[in-house]
Amino acid sequence: MSYRVTIAYRQPTDPAAFDAYYRDTHLALAAQIPDVVRFTAGRADSPDGEQPYFYQLAEVVFDSREKALAALASPAGKAAADDIPNFADNGAAMFFSEEEVRVP
Amino acid sequence: MSYRVTIAYRQPTDPAAFDAYYRDTHLALAAQIPDVVRFTAGRADSPDGEQPYFYQLAEVVFDSREKALAALASPAGKAAADDIPNFADNGAAMFFSEEEVRVP
Repeated sequence: MSYRVTIAYRQPTDPAAFDAYYRDTHLALAAQIPDVVRFTAGRADSPDGEQPYFYQLAEVVFDSREKALAALASPAGKAAADDIPNFADNGAAMFFSEEEVRVP
Repeated sequence: MSYRVTIAYRQPTDPAAFDAYYRDTHLALAAQIPDVVRFTAGRADSPDGEQPYFYQLAEVVFDSREKALAALASPAGKAAADDIPNFADNGAAMFFSEEEVRVP
């Protein structure tokens, strides 16, 4: 059963600086995390055009809870997590969840 | 570019009732939403064993923002959204985001 880690970045003070750092530095660190089945990331949006509460969402999917927690505790996982304050000055929320239902 | 709708259900008063309704009724309504590329859902977790802020997370992925908003505005999309208060008595947050980066 897949295990999903969702990182929801709050609106940063300087979106352009966030974007540049995310693209040029953070993605390379995230790519080092072991046992990642799927990584997706992108800008938050709102259907009504209001500013969304979050700025950017990323999702890291693993094969199991055990692999996810081990990966996050690994040196590469810690390096990626420790890098977040370097560009997300208002922080990020992290949500963890099982993928119990999947269609297709 | 894929477009992702994340539904984060807050802790319900009666988790067993939530689970039964979600499985027996809500999933069938969600399955009627048009143009869904991928649907995943499952229990929220926390690495440290504390009660997570959310109870359950679901994610509905579409091919584009346009298809997503049209699907949510369709009768089936509205029926699924209108069903949420029937089992999630403390409500749900919805996050919308583009999938700009996807690996693999």
